[in-house]
Amino acid sequence: MSGLLTFGETMGLVTADGIGALDRVRGFRLGIGGAESNVALGVARLGLPATWIGRVGRDATGDLIERRLRADGVEAVVIRDPSFTGLMVKHRRTGALLHVDYHRAGSAGSRLMPADIPVGAVRAAAIVHVTGITPALSDSARAAVFQAVETARAAGVPVSVDVNFRAKLWSPYDAGPVLRDLVSRADLVFAGPGEAALIVDGPPLQGLAALGPTEVIVKDGARGCTALIDGERHTVPARDVVVVDPVGAGDAFAAGYLADRLSGAAPAARLATAIAAGAFAVTVPGDCESLPTREDLIAATTDVTR
Amino acid sequence: MSGLLTFGETMGLVTADGIGALDRVRGFRLGIGGAESNVALGVARLGLPATWIGRVGRDATGDLIERRLRADGVEAVVIRDPSFTGLMVKHRRTGALLHVDYHRAGSAGSRLMPADIPVGAVRAAAIVHVTGITPALSDSARAAVFQAVETARAAGVPVSVDVNFRAKLWSPYDAGPVLRDLVSRADLVFAGPGEAALIVDGPPLQGLAALGPTEVIVKDGARGCTALIDGERHTVPARDVVVVDPVGAGDAFAAGYLADRLSGAAPAARLATAIAAGAFAVTVPGDCESLPTREDLIAATTDVTR
Amino acid sequence: MSGLLTFGETMGLVTADGIGALDRVRGFRLGIGGAESNVALGVARLGLPATWIGRVGRDATGDLIERRLRADGVEAVVIRDPSFTGLMVKHRRTGALLHVDYHRAGSAGSRLMPADIPVGAVRAAAIVHVTGITPALSDSARAAVFQAVETARAAGVPVSVDVNFRAKLWSPYDAGPVLRDLVSRADLVFAGPGEAALIVDGPPLQGLAALGPTEVIVKDGARGCTALIDGERHTVPARDVVVVDPVGAGDAFAAGYLADRLSGAAPAARLATAIAAGAFAVTVPGDCESLPTREDLIAATTDVTR
Amino acid sequence: MSGLLTFGETMGLVTADGIGALDRVRGFRLGIGGAESNVALGVARLGLPATWIGRVGRDATGDLIERRLRADGVEAVVIRDPSFTGLMVKHRRTGALLHVDYHRAGSAGSRLMPADIPVGAVRAAAIVHVTGITPALSDSARAAVFQAVETARAAGVPVSVDVNFRAKLWSPYDAGPVLRDLVSRADLVFAGPGEAALIVDGPPLQGLAALGPTEVIVKDGARGCTALIDGERHTVPARDVVVVDPVGAGDAFAAGYLADRLSGAAPAARLATAIAAGAFAVTVPGDCESLPTREDLIAATTDVTR
Amino acid sequence: MSGLLTFGETMGLVTADGIGALDRVRGFRLGIGGAESNVALGVARLGLPATWIGRVGRDATGDLIERRLRADGVEAVVIRDPSFTGLMVKHRRTGALLHVDYHRAGSAGSRLMPADIPVGAVRAAAIVHVTGITPALSDSARAAVFQAVETARAAGVPVSVDVNFRAKLWSPYDAGPVLRDLVSRADLVFAGPGEAALIVDGPPLQGLAALGPTEVIVKDGARGCTALIDGERHTVPARDVVVVDPVGAGDAFAAGYLADRLSGAAPAARLATAIAAGAFAVTVPGDCESLPTREDLIAATTDVTR
Amino acid sequence: MSGLLTFGETMGLVTADGIGALDRVRGFRLGIGGAESNVALGVARLGLPATWIGRVGRDATGDLIERRLRADGVEAVVIRDPSFTGLMVKHRRTGALLHVDYHRAGSAGSRLMPADIPVGAVRAAAIVHVTGITPALSDSARAAVFQAVETARAAGVPVSVDVNFRAKLWSPYDAGPVLRDLVSRADLVFAGPGEAALIVDGPPLQGLAALGPTEVIVKDGARGCTALIDGERHTVPARDVVVVDPVGAGDAFAAGYLADRLSGAAPAARLATAIAAGAFAVTVPGDCESLPTREDLIAATTDVTR
Ligand SMILES: Nc1ncnc2c1ncn2[C@@H]1O[C@H](COP(=O)(O)OP(=O)(O)O)[C@@H](O)[C@H]1O
Ligand SMILES: Nc1ncnc2c1ncn2[C@@H]1O[C@H](COP(=O)(O)OP(=O)(O)O)[C@@H](O)[C@H]1O
Ligand SMILES: Nc1ncnc2c1ncn2[C@@H]1O[C@H](COP(=O)(O)OP(=O)(O)O)[C@@H](O)[C@H]1O
Ligand SMILES: Nc1ncnc2c1ncn2[C@@H]1O[C@H](COP(=O)(O)OP(=O)(O)O)[C@@H](O)[C@H]1O
Ligand SMILES: Nc1ncnc2c1ncn2[C@@H]1O[C@H](COP(=O)(O)OP(=O)(O)O)[C@@H](O)[C@H]1O
Ligand SMILES: Nc1ncnc2c1ncn2[C@@H]1O[C@H](COP(=O)(O)OP(=O)(O)O)[C@@H](O)[C@H]1O
Repeated sequence: MSGLLTFGETMGLVTADGIGALDRVRGFRLGIGGAESNVALGVARLGLPATWIGRVGRDATGDLIERRLRADGVEAVVIRDPSFTGLMVKHRRTGALLHVDYHRAGSAGSRLMPADIPVGAVRAAAIVHVTGITPALSDSARAAVFQAVETARAAGVPVSVDVNFRAKLWSPYDAGPVLRDLVSRADLVFAGPGEAALIVDGPPLQGLAALGPTEVIVKDGARGCTALIDGERHTVPARDVVVVDPVGAGDAFAAGYLADRLSGAAPAARLATAIAAGAFAVTVPGDCESLPTREDLIAATTDVTR
Repeated sequence: MSGLLTFGETMGLVTADGIGALDRVRGFRLGIGGAESNVALGVARLGLPATWIGRVGRDATGDLIERRLRADGVEAVVIRDPSFTGLMVKHRRTGALLHVDYHRAGSAGSRLMPADIPVGAVRAAAIVHVTGITPALSDSARAAVFQAVETARAAGVPVSVDVNFRAKLWSPYDAGPVLRDLVSRADLVFAGPGEAALIVDGPPLQGLAALGPTEVIVKDGARGCTALIDGERHTVPARDVVVVDPVGAGDAFAAGYLADRLSGAAPAARLATAIAAGAFAVTVPGDCESLPTREDLIAATTDVTR
Repeated sequence: MSGLLTFGETMGLVTADGIGALDRVRGFRLGIGGAESNVALGVARLGLPATWIGRVGRDATGDLIERRLRADGVEAVVIRDPSFTGLMVKHRRTGALLHVDYHRAGSAGSRLMPADIPVGAVRAAAIVHVTGITPALSDSARAAVFQAVETARAAGVPVSVDVNFRAKLWSPYDAGPVLRDLVSRADLVFAGPGEAALIVDGPPLQGLAALGPTEVIVKDGARGCTALIDGERHTVPARDVVVVDPVGAGDAFAAGYLADRLSGAAPAARLATAIAAGAFAVTVPGDCESLPTREDLIAATTDVTR
Repeated sequence: MSGLLTFGETMGLVTADGIGALDRVRGFRLGIGGAESNVALGVARLGLPATWIGRVGRDATGDLIERRLRADGVEAVVIRDPSFTGLMVKHRRTGALLHVDYHRAGSAGSRLMPADIPVGAVRAAAIVHVTGITPALSDSARAAVFQAVETARAAGVPVSVDVNFRAKLWSPYDAGPVLRDLVSRADLVFAGPGEAALIVDGPPLQGLAALGPTEVIVKDGARGCTALIDGERHTVPARDVVVVDPVGAGDAFAAGYLADRLSGAAPAARLATAIAAGAFAVTVPGDCESLPTREDLIAATTDVTR
Repeated sequence: MSGLLTFGETMGLVTADGIGALDRVRGFRLGIGGAESNVALGVARLGLPATWIGRVGRDATGDLIERRLRADGVEAVVIRDPSFTGLMVKHRRTGALLHVDYHRAGSAGSRLMPADIPVGAVRAAAIVHVTGITPALSDSARAAVFQAVETARAAGVPVSVDVNFRAKLWSPYDAGPVLRDLVSRADLVFAGPGEAALIVDGPPLQGLAALGPTEVIVKDGARGCTALIDGERHTVPARDVVVVDPVGAGDAFAAGYLADRLSGAAPAARLATAIAAGAFAVTVPGDCESLPTREDLIAATTDVTR
Repeated sequence: MSGLLTFGETMGLVTADGIGALDRVRGFRLGIGGAESNVALGVARLGLPATWIGRVGRDATGDLIERRLRADGVEAVVIRDPSFTGLMVKHRRTGALLHVDYHRAGSAGSRLMPADIPVGAVRAAAIVHVTGITPALSDSARAAVFQAVETARAAGVPVSVDVNFRAKLWSPYDAGPVLRDLVSRADLVFAGPGEAALIVDGPPLQGLAALGPTEVIVKDGARGCTALIDGERHTVPARDVVVVDPVGAGDAFAAGYLADRLSGAAPAARLATAIAAGAFAVTVPGDCESLPTREDLIAATTDVTR
């Protein structure tokens, strides 16, 4: 295996149709969600090998996660845990107000532990990708992250970190030092401006780069992104698109960048793909449904012919 | 009981999904609608006591009305009438063109009569709220309105009137004098600019106030509202929101104002709540589905955290 | 025009999806329903000319009725009335318990009057078909029925009556004499055993025939039908089918019989088509959706080939 | 308050539409479920006062539970807990095979504790109803059950127990002694034959009665029930109905019995209502959606009139 | 018959609900589509007589086409062919990206031949309308078009051509000469600016008019249209509407123009109706669902009254 | 690769929801269907390796086929053809009457040719499975079947044939000799009693075995199956299940048998799995959705625990 290796918690995602209070909703969908598995899915859809490791319960939602990842070509190493698969419940309170609840404390996914991540798999990976969510889930999950990162570093495998600060899991006060430690051990880092500010003072690119990573990408929604890659600075505006659903842009962006890095593309090309993938993601509803294929990226820039 | 007392006709509301001619529609919803019950629901959702009195048929739609009002905490005094519950059929002919038909002539709700409104309940109320729809339904319904208003006045209970002129029920020529008479007996009055013009000449606030009410609120859609309350003039702009469904704003607005008045808030605070409630209403589809709770008002002004 | 002429009230039909109380239902359909227009639709689907006359409101439900009838080839003479189009609301309280409410009192359809039925159309018809529902709607509707029947008789046009007693519209005590009078003026009569018992004592076939009609058909659900046609007695068992929705069988049966009579088929053939149409109707959900075409009747007796 | 008092865990219930594997399902519903709240809902729908106490999370599913219970007139004492509201995911793997997963370990509901059940409320109740599910949730929940039961006994308030053994929560080996202890402290007990066998040897009625309860009801699905009430033996067959969804019969049955007991009906009448409620429940889909009102019980035994 | 006569291929149209990849779609609709039958439908909805001739398979989709056209009053001459009815599959890959596949090669519709178009019907028509799609379907279909056009010309029946270039059917290189030949034989021509450029160089209006047609209309989406009619030049801006679905505007436009021409309206009035019909079409989803009636055109310019 | 190798035509499958005529249907699903790919899916779901080879169009339906097969672990060798992907349209005309139309003539799938089936893949397979459908599609498809069968025989790879006679594709007269020839070259043959009668006279098992196959399985719906395997006769009754959708049983049956044969199970065990898989298939709606996993087979024989 020489592709992307990632791990974390993936949950069932119950999403309400339409807009309005939960007791007025007429129908729901059940999908899956998880920042790391989204990136794995995104990389796989773009045609590069991706492995995801995680724990799910011995329940139908766990089966769903396994099937959905396999269906898109992700090499899913699914560990069955006696606890239940975590669930998210998502609905729009108003046209503009998205509400998400996490039913995850004590879930199977949060019980990830260092032994779940095979040393051999880490060493054989082309990139190891982790997020700042996993260290917030449990002590054992935090240990799994740091141990895998160290194993990768020792083996010369590049480490990618998406900061992904989640205010519902821990406070900025608790998260700051851990995320800073994590970024210090990374080769690549993805962050939003606010996330960067949790970790470093001053201008984000320079600040984060000063911690060690040689590829720092600061993404900023409709404003696009800036990056400092191997010492060179890049600024790429976002595409001008009609936003259907803003969720999932960051994971699509990271997947686009990492897929292109895996296939040996130059920094500017990686960022172009990342920007295109992020743009695609916001024009399609859903989380992982909105991760593009290469064909989608091409189609999205062409007109219909009849 | 020391809350809001209101009464009127509430109907079943058949709403088409999507956009297009009725024979192309694939699905419908069945809800309930009525200006007075909407205000009662709105007040109850905001945590204040509200009673609604009305007639419905001995049919499943009548049961639905009773259950929906109770479900939201409205004290519903539902009188079963031998006639049928009125129905509305609503669909969007185009993206911009909403069409509503009333199947209500001779309905149970229109057969409301003075004896339906217990004198004791009127005297015990903190506010009695009526609309300009009820006097247009039937002679007995008109009598019920004026009799309740007089009972309230005599007992020192403040009377609130929402003008709510309905062109499908009567002509401006017929409605003018009746609505003018009604407003003259009110303490509070809610009106749109066009409705004010049916009743008084010249500037609406002053004109309406000259008839007697000490609290006159002229609401004007995306332009917000102006008010003359206890001699003081207020102007409050509407919130800047993305409109999902414009219907229901006026009832949410009135409910917000009246709920705050019941809880003893000052005029400026009442108007702020009214404006927030109106803004919430237009960002959520449906009529009474879009009446906010206190939590909704708070949430609608905050960002998502994940 | 030399086909079937019929008239009566057709309403909008709001039908709940699934099973359960109205406030738990997730979706509804809006169709049309009316015993006479169902027979007209059924005759037209079987390829014979059929005209329906009736009043509807100036509302979208009235448009729907007009379009649906035309769509199936019924010559619809739709009179627009200032009152509203009547509505029915139908839901299944349990798997076995169908509940229907009529929101029809004072509706456009009930305001049918003698002048609505052109004398020329009656005289030119091959059959005039009426039901026992229309005389229960209003005095003017009753007059319309009896006047059209007399016009037909005078012109030698055969008169068909489906007894169709509706307990929600009038009592057996009120209905009995009127229905008896109506049947006495008919050439053809369709009745269930219970309906016959409202009109005559003793065995239904003989009793009804004694009133005058030369074609008496007593249909009896899963037991099929018996008939006395031009003095000859027929007994036809029902087909053995899996019932999906029992509603609409009687109208399909009458349409089958009348279509075949219009095309000159012999009594036994008419009854066979009637029985097949009734059987088809109960294997398909919906009211007028379940009226068969000739192709349906053939297909329903053949196996699938792949 | 002199009605039913009950408490326990109520969860969000995600139910798949249709039949088939979770990743083929096209839509879901989100309802609520909990044996105790179902009984409270059932009692309230039958018109008797019912209070439910329990913990839910500070999430939209918790709000849904609160609203749904209130909507049906249950006095809901909803304690907000920092943990999440438990969720169930239910789907039909085949037409005959229902699969339910519990995402509940560590949930808000399982954190119920003795102090949550006010001593005054217990003493003021007409009946205290508990199930064998709550003692399996956590040590504090078990303590809450036994403490409330003892408080009730001491105050002379009758204690009702529905055995409700759940194999997914504990083994028969663990459950046996606890359930036996619980039943020994009860005045009324509801059990299936298999549940009785977990607790006592030999014939269930006599065995359970020997432990103390003076009202023992053994319900047995389509076979109906047997009971030993105040020393008298009753056998009531189930009604002959077409089953739409077998889930929820037991809770409807208990609610029927308890509602009638609250209103002072004699044992035979209570059992008749219980049997009717159980029969109704299986003819309607859903869990708490299938709890009947008095009107439903009457309607379910009558024919449609048109 | 003295109305519009048109012919071509009409197909079943499978349309995905919502936005996203085909394997994420939860539901589909099955409608019908075809440029010529759309124009016939549009003309019929506007109250003028319209006949459509075409081939469909002996399959349920063929039945659907026949029923839908008849339902809207089109005189449909439906020839049943041993080949299958063509199908289109349409879905939105993103909010902005519509994708259509044609499953039509060798279909019944493409097997249209000269003998399918009765000489008598052509001669009796008030206008014969063809499109540039039909000549691209097959040799026999092309022959049918040119033969009918010549028959019409010889009989003095005006010929209308909508250029309708379809890049999925043939290349600009192949299409150019054929379309140019077709336009040269026409009296009326509808084209977009790009289509005009396939046929003539320079300014489209003058270029196309130079080929022969005395009524040249160049429509240009949100920019409206320009026209050269009987030597006079017209420029009409589009209406300012919120676009719901841009598909179908061209057919609605042509139908509006042709209906008004049939009823003898002057050029400016025809263009006004065309512009209104095009505007209506883009505010309603679907293809032929968005063709307006006269009432729709009036309603679309009025406000709601309540 | 040492698993199952199969090839043939797989199409898009448009299925109407509910029961009734196509123009009354409210929603549709789009899935995939093909006897050979169903068997491949079935084998893969049961955990054995399976490869499918076939042609699809360069359209979204082709993508769907590819993704769906991959999602379930089938090694899909998908050849893109310039023609379109075939489509089936399926609806229930009545509760009992399923109607399927094929829109497939000239489709991509029918253009399969010998060179599409790599000789190496055939030789490396553990079993080659073909059906009697493919030879009916086109000359080149027929050649592909016979060439692959001969290649397998020459390499000592067992050949499995499911007779699968399709009356819509060819007459019994045309099909008889071809199917007989095909069966003569097979090692395993699956047939229904009617299919056997097309090929041989007299008792099916002996007749088919006399042609050469050493494993002859005659399946017969609810009557189960008989088999002659390596000279030994087996009779296995079907399971007693409630049928939800009879379609797909044969493919599930074949997949069950072949999966067990691949894993080295004895004949009786293979038949038991086949019978269980067929029983599962009829209790779940849909075609390939109803192919069981090992877990499904276990679950389907166990009760729910709560
Ligand atoms: N509204 C938008 N328009 C176009 N591209 C966007 C938009 N929002 C996000 N993107 C793209 O996706 C990338 C990541 O989005 P962002 O919102 O910063 O991530 P996150 O989802 O992690 O908050 C952006 O850098 C941009 O390229
Ligand atoms: N487009 C909008 N944007 C923001 N607030 C609105 C909008 N429309 C209505 N509102 C709020 O709701 C209030 C009542 O709306 P209005 O449209 O005047 O009432 P009505 O529904 O009775 O016509 C307004 O005063 C305003 O505060
Ligand atoms: N369950 C059934 N099975 C077969 N045919 C039926 C069934 N129910 C009705 N039919 C057919 O339809 C005819 C009319 O049905 P019936 O129920 O008597 O009419 P109505 O709907 O007027 O009560 C019957 O005579 C019979 O031929
Ligand atoms: N198939 C059925 N038909 C009629 N009544 C039923 C049926 N199933 C259950 N009931 C009624 O509901 C009661 C409780 O059902 P049961 O299945 O024993 O409870 P539980 O849901 O607790 O297992 C039964 O005693 C019976 O009265
Ligand atoms: N966005 C729009 N707004 C208003 N009218 C439009 C719009 N798009 C199209 N129309 C109307 O429909 C007509 C035909 O539209 P067009 O897009 O040119 O046709 P086609 O569908 O053949 O490409 C235009 O001339 C215009 O009148
Ligand atoms: N109604 C049924 N009940 C139980 N098992 C069935 C039923 N129908 C089919 N099966 C199982 O599936 C197998 C294949 O079904 P069959 O109908 O013979 O195949 P086909 O779909 O090819 O016609 C049968 O041998 C039987 O084991």
